[in-house]
Amino acid sequence: MSATGLLDLAAVFVFALSGGLAASRAQLDIVGFIFVAALTAVGGGTVRDVLLDRDQVFWVAEPRYVLAASVAAVLVFFTAHIFESRYRALLWLDAAALAVAVPAGVGVALSMEQPAVIVLIMGVSTGCFGGLMRDVVCNEVPLVLKQGELYVTAAFAGAAAGLCAVWIGAGNTTVLLSAGIATLALRAGSLAFGWQLPVYKSRPPRV
Amino acid sequence: MSATGLLDLAAVFVFALSGGLAASRAQLDIVGFIFVAALTAVGGGTVRDVLLDRDQVFWVAEPRYVLAASVAAVLVFFTAHIFESRYRALLWLDAAALAVAVPAGVGVALSMEQPAVIVLIMGVSTGCFGGLMRDVVCNEVPLVLKQGELYVTAAFAGAAAGLCAVWIGAGNTTVLLSAGIATLALRAGSLAFGWQLPVYKSRPPRV
Amino acid sequence: MSATGLLDLAAVFVFALSGGLAASRAQLDIVGFIFVAALTAVGGGTVRDVLLDRDQVFWVAEPRYVLAASVAAVLVFFTAHIFESRYRALLWLDAAALAVAVPAGVGVALSMEQPAVIVLIMGVSTGCFGGLMRDVVCNEVPLVLKQGELYVTAAFAGAAAGLCAVWIGAGNTTVLLSAGIATLALRAGSLAFGWQLPVYKSRPPRV
Repeated sequence: MSATGLLDLAAVFVFALSGGLAASRAQLDIVGFIFVAALTAVGGGTVRDVLLDRDQVFWVAEPRYVLAASVAAVLVFFTAHIFESRYRALLWLDAAALAVAVPAGVGVALSMEQPAVIVLIMGVSTGCFGGLMRDVVCNEVPLVLKQGELYVTAAFAGAAAGLCAVWIGAGNTTVLLSAGIATLALRAGSLAFGWQLPVYKSRPPRV
Repeated sequence: MSATGLLDLAAVFVFALSGGLAASRAQLDIVGFIFVAALTAVGGGTVRDVLLDRDQVFWVAEPRYVLAASVAAVLVFFTAHIFESRYRALLWLDAAALAVAVPAGVGVALSMEQPAVIVLIMGVSTGCFGGLMRDVVCNEVPLVLKQGELYVTAAFAGAAAGLCAVWIGAGNTTVLLSAGIATLALRAGSLAFGWQLPVYKSRPPRV
Repeated sequence: MSATGLLDLAAVFVFALSGGLAASRAQLDIVGFIFVAALTAVGGGTVRDVLLDRDQVFWVAEPRYVLAASVAAVLVFFTAHIFESRYRALLWLDAAALAVAVPAGVGVALSMEQPAVIVLIMGVSTGCFGGLMRDVVCNEVPLVLKQGELYVTAAFAGAAAGLCAVWIGAGNTTVLLSAGIATLALRAGSLAFGWQLPVYKSRPPRV
């Protein structure tokens, strides 16, 4: 299994955990857990593969990804009650999944020798679309769009860090690690310390 | 026209009726009816065809599917007022469409000799995504996710019933019939008698 | 660059402006602006290209489209406050983008020698799906579905006008112009003068 294959598997599992938590907040039954978990888990990578017109969507080629998502969903169904705040747990699991999915997107785009701007977009898309689908389907406020948080920005910075590593001639592992670490650092900083970029204000305060 | 082609046509027509009813609840004009009906009607099959990377999406290959959806939309535009409860009618039409779309998805995946887990997923996706798009676009609560109802579960059980029929060596017609009947039985049982699986409860009652 | 290429570029830029305005209403940061603008800008054309199974999605083939969307997003981030009503500006920008995207969809489908009904659908899809994604993601009421307005209808009439021009043997430029002008005329008439088709009423007034 290739490095991006392993990253895809890890992202699938962790995103599926976050999808399971969203399903628990919507009080679904176990098949609903599996549905939401699988959608979240493979959503971003599916968008990437359809956009890049890969020979096969990754989980159609190797169905074990879907099985991993199902296992995660069942796991959450029976253990979600142990979290004091399931929303808080969802946020952190989502952050971890983002930090794995962004390098997975970057790695696939690089292996197809796409230009830099497409590598950036695939990193961001693989990272963001699974969680976006989860939130739209479950009627949560999309994390992608919560104001005053770094989310798309973290994914973007992670993909950019991966590209920088490519430009200075780093090896494949270093590239993927840079992308993951930069994403996680910014997203975690935003969750823990409230890091943010200035947001658009319609009416700035006047002096 | 093949068996799965006929199933697709039937699913398209019935899903389009349900889309028309959703459009009537949103008080759209006749072109809006056609838009929502067509989206609902071909949404699930389109997702299936894109995921499986079929040569052509089924309704691009044979546009008569879209015409069928348009006819259904116009029909509903002029007759929706005869239903005492349009939401109730929507629920039952949707159940009928689900019971046709699941075997259509199973049939296509089998004809492409996909492994069992992919057959399951294509049955569920073809069944569920059209209605999901309808509900997201029309701001209805997604039926897929209404707690305390069998919906994804019915689709899942139907696809599994089809697979079982394959494993015991049944012919093509029996496989498709098994999938459709199992789906309809569970979904109708849920609508009529309130059948459900236990849902996740965040705080179980204590003794 | 071909005529449809130029139309795509224009549609991308104007849709991106409208996406930026939606992002300003959601008070996002600058990366959020770029994300929403890019999604709105390339959404419709991406749906078209995936459905028609073109060799490559247009912006993967030529990433300058995404750069154009990013420029538009940055522009809006720094200038949106000059609009007295950002929602009004969004409506008119969206109308302009619709009038460019519909001919872009028609042109691509014609160049692939698709049958008339597919040309119609691609005109409507290219026009409508970018704005629909923008509105679903930003939690705005989808413009596609606002009752008492011509939106899908304008796109549909524009695509039909383009087809009529083809049937009377007009040249490529005339076809695209007809589609654009008809779309814009109807959509602008709806915004400025309240033109509409009769909508479905559940309970017509009795005499």
